[in-house]
Amino acid sequence: MKIGVPGETVVGETRVALVPPVARRLVERGLDVLVATGAGTGSDWSDDEYAAVGCTVLDDRAAVFERSDVVLQVRGLGARPDGEVDPYREGGTVVGMLGPYAVEDATLEALAARRVTLFALELLPRTGRAQSMDVLTSMASLGGYKAVVVAADALPKLFPMQMTAAGTIQPASVFVVGAGVAGLQAIATARRLGARVRAYDVRPAVKEEVESLGAGFVELDLETAEAATGGGYAREQDPEFYREQREAMTDAVGAADVVVTSAAVPGRPAPTLVTEAMLDGMAAGSVVVDLAAAGGGNCEPTRPDETVEYGDVTVFGPTNLPATVPRTASQLFANNVANFLEHLLRDGSLHVDIDDEIVDATLLTHDGTVRAPNRRDEADAA
Amino acid sequence: MKIGVPGETVVGETRVALVPPVARRLVERGLDVLVATGAGTGSDWSDDEYAAVGCTVLDDRAAVFERSDVVLQVRGLGARPDGEVDPYREGGTVVGMLGPYAVEDATLEALAARRVTLFALELLPRTGRAQSMDVLTSMASLGGYKAVVVAADALPKLFPMQMTAAGTIQPASVFVVGAGVAGLQAIATARRLGARVRAYDVRPAVKEEVESLGAGFVELDLETAEAATGGGYAREQDPEFYREQREAMTDAVGAADVVVTSAAVPGRPAPTLVTEAMLDGMAAGSVVVDLAAAGGGNCEPTRPDETVEYGDVTVFGPTNLPATVPRTASQLFANNVANFLEHLLRDGSLHVDIDDEIVDATLLTHDGTVRAPNRRDEADAA
Repeated sequence: MKIGVPGETVVGETRVALVPPVARRLVERGLDVLVATGAGTGSDWSDDEYAAVGCTVLDDRAAVFERSDVVLQVRGLGARPDGEVDPYREGGTVVGMLGPYAVEDATLEALAARRVTLFALELLPRTGRAQSMDVLTSMASLGGYKAVVVAADALPKLFPMQMTAAGTIQPASVFVVGAGVAGLQAIATARRLGARVRAYDVRPAVKEEVESLGAGFVELDLETAEAATGGGYAREQDPEFYREQREAMTDAVGAADVVVTSAAVPGRPAPTLVTEAMLDGMAAGSVVVDLAAAGGGNCEPTRPDETVEYGDVTVFGPTNLPATVPRTASQLFANNVANFLEHLLRDGSLHVDIDDEIVDATLLTHDGTVRAPNRRDEADAA
Repeated sequence: MKIGVPGETVVGETRVALVPPVARRLVERGLDVLVATGAGTGSDWSDDEYAAVGCTVLDDRAAVFERSDVVLQVRGLGARPDGEVDPYREGGTVVGMLGPYAVEDATLEALAARRVTLFALELLPRTGRAQSMDVLTSMASLGGYKAVVVAADALPKLFPMQMTAAGTIQPASVFVVGAGVAGLQAIATARRLGARVRAYDVRPAVKEEVESLGAGFVELDLETAEAATGGGYAREQDPEFYREQREAMTDAVGAADVVVTSAAVPGRPAPTLVTEAMLDGMAAGSVVVDLAAAGGGNCEPTRPDETVEYGDVTVFGPTNLPATVPRTASQLFANNVANFLEHLLRDGSLHVDIDDEIVDATLLTHDGTVRAPNRRDEADAA
C-alpha cells in the first residue's frame, strides 16, 4: 500500500503530515511512502532525510496524489481557507484535518461519487483510545504555549518577579479565559515564566486542574450545570449567560497585563467574551492573544491573522500558532496520523470498520456515500 | 534643586530615566522634578501620571535642559549612536549612561570648559555599595531574559519537554556563551521555560553559579588564570586563546538549538567566539541571539540591529533589548539613578566628593576639567 505525503500548499502552512522518523516506522511495517519534493521544507526536513529512511521522493506533487492509496495531509478541504480542493484520486483515501464543519456538502458529494474515503481527524472522539491520534489536542497545546511566548515578547514588562538591588519588580499578571487544552498549556507556560496566573472556564470541573498548575480560578456565580457536552468541549451558551459572564470578567481582565482567550465551540463562531469596554480597563501596554481568532475571536477587536492596536492594548489574532513551531508540530501531527493509520491497518492495507468508534466518528465519505454523523450532531447541539 | 527629565530622542529608545513612582520619592525629598511632555510615552507613563506625583510637565524639551540643575538621561553623549549632543546648560550636571568609551575627548573638553558635571553610570564600581545604582547590571539582566524570549518566539521547536499521548518531545537545547549578568539571566529564563541549558565562560569561577541555575558548565582545558579583571568583567584575551576556545566550542554550538552570546569587554570590540564554521554545524532552524551585537557581536555573521539568515540559522543582533521591556527597564533605571542621586545629596543639593569611590569612578567632567580615570584604566588594561 502506498502512503502519500503531498505537502501543504496553504499560505503560511509550515507543517507537514509525516516527518522522516515517523515515516521510517511506516516503511518498516512494509508500507511504501511517497513524498513530494520540498514537503518537509517548512519544518526543516530535507528530501534527503525522507529518502534516507526509505521514502520515495517525487518531483511532481500531482504524482503523489495519483499514485497513493492513502494521502496524509495537515490541511485539506474545509481546513483550507483558500477553498482549494486537492486532486484526490478515485477510490483513494485521505487522512488529515479536513475542516468537517466548513466543507461544502456538494464537495463531499462529489468526492463520495468518486468513491473517495475521507477521514477528518478533527472528529476523533475524546476517548482514551483515540488520545494518541488527537491532532486537535496536540495542536491546541502548542497554541497555548506559543500564545504566552508571543505575549512575553510583546509585553513591556518582565513576566517573572525580579528581586534586585534596585528594588523588587512585581511579576506580570496573566488571565486565561477558557481552560481547555490550549488554555491549560497557556497557564502552565505563563507559570513557568514566573507570571501570576488566573483562569476562568465555563466548566467548573476544570477548577482543580487550573489550581494544580499554580493558577487561581476565577469563580463566577452563574448557572453552569450543563456547560460540558458529552464530547468534553465547552458547549455554546445562550446570550444572557454570556452577558452575565462578561460583567463578572471585567475586573479580572482589568487586573491583567496579559489575557489569553481560547474559548471555542467546534463548528460554531467563537463567543465574544472580552469586550472593548473590558479592554478599556486594562493598563497601557497590555497584551491580548486570542486563540479563538479563526472562529472570529473571543475578543471584540480581534481580526484573524492581524495584530490590532485597540487604544493602548495590543490584540493578537493568530489563527495558526502551531505553524510557528513547525518542527514540534509536525512531529506530533505525524505521530497522531501514524497512530490513526496503524489503528486501521490489517495485513498491510486499510480496514474501514464502521462499527469501530474511531472510524465511525471521523469518516466523512466512504463507499460512495456521505456520512459525518458527529459533524451533524455538533451542528444540531449548538 | 531642579531635577530634569528631558526624555529620550534616540530612535527606538522607549525607556525613560525617571518614572512617576520614583519621581514621587524625589519630590518628597523636596526636589523639584521637571519632565518634558511625552517623556514617559514609550514606557506607558502619561504626563498626567507625572503631574499627579508633583512633577512639573513642560511642553518644551529645551526648557527642561535650561531650567534643570541635574538632568537625568537614559542615553546621552557617547551612548547616543546618532552622535547628538544635548543642550546641557553651563554649570549643570548630567547623570545617565553617557557612553564613556565612545564619547569624543573634544566633546568632554568643550563641556568641561562650560563647567558641566557629567556622571557616566556605566563606570560605577562593581561593589556592594554601588549595586543599587548599577544600571549595567539592571539592563543586562533584562537583555538576558528577553534574548531567551526572542529565541523561543523564533525557534521552530518547543522549549519544554512534552510528554503526550502522541509521544515524548525532547526539550530544546540552549547554549549560553558568557555567564555574566545577561548570561546568567538567559540561563535562568531558558531553564524556567524547560530547556536543557549549557553555558561557558572564560572565568572558571562562575561555574558554580551556572550549575546552581540548573545548567551544565562546558569545561575547556585552557589557560584562564587571569581571566577576571579586578572590575569583575571578563578581560580581553589574546588571539591564540580565542582560537583554542573556538575549537573547543564547536561541538557545544553544534549540539544547541539556541545559542545566546553575551561576552563583552567594556569599551572594546566584542570577541568573535561563534564562527560561521560553528553555525554550519547547527541544525536547520536554529537560532542565535547575540547580546554583544552593539560591540560588533560574538558571532561572525551578526549585524547590529538586524536579523541575519546565515544558511538555515537565524542570527539576531539586538543592540537594545531592554528597550523592548520599557516598563520594567524604566522602573529599574529610575531606581538606579535615584539611588545614585540620593547618594550624592547633602541638604537638598548635590555634593561632589571626589574622594568617594562612586563619585570618583563615574565622574567624567567636573569643575572645568576632564577626568575619567576608569575609562582610561579599562582602555589600558585591554
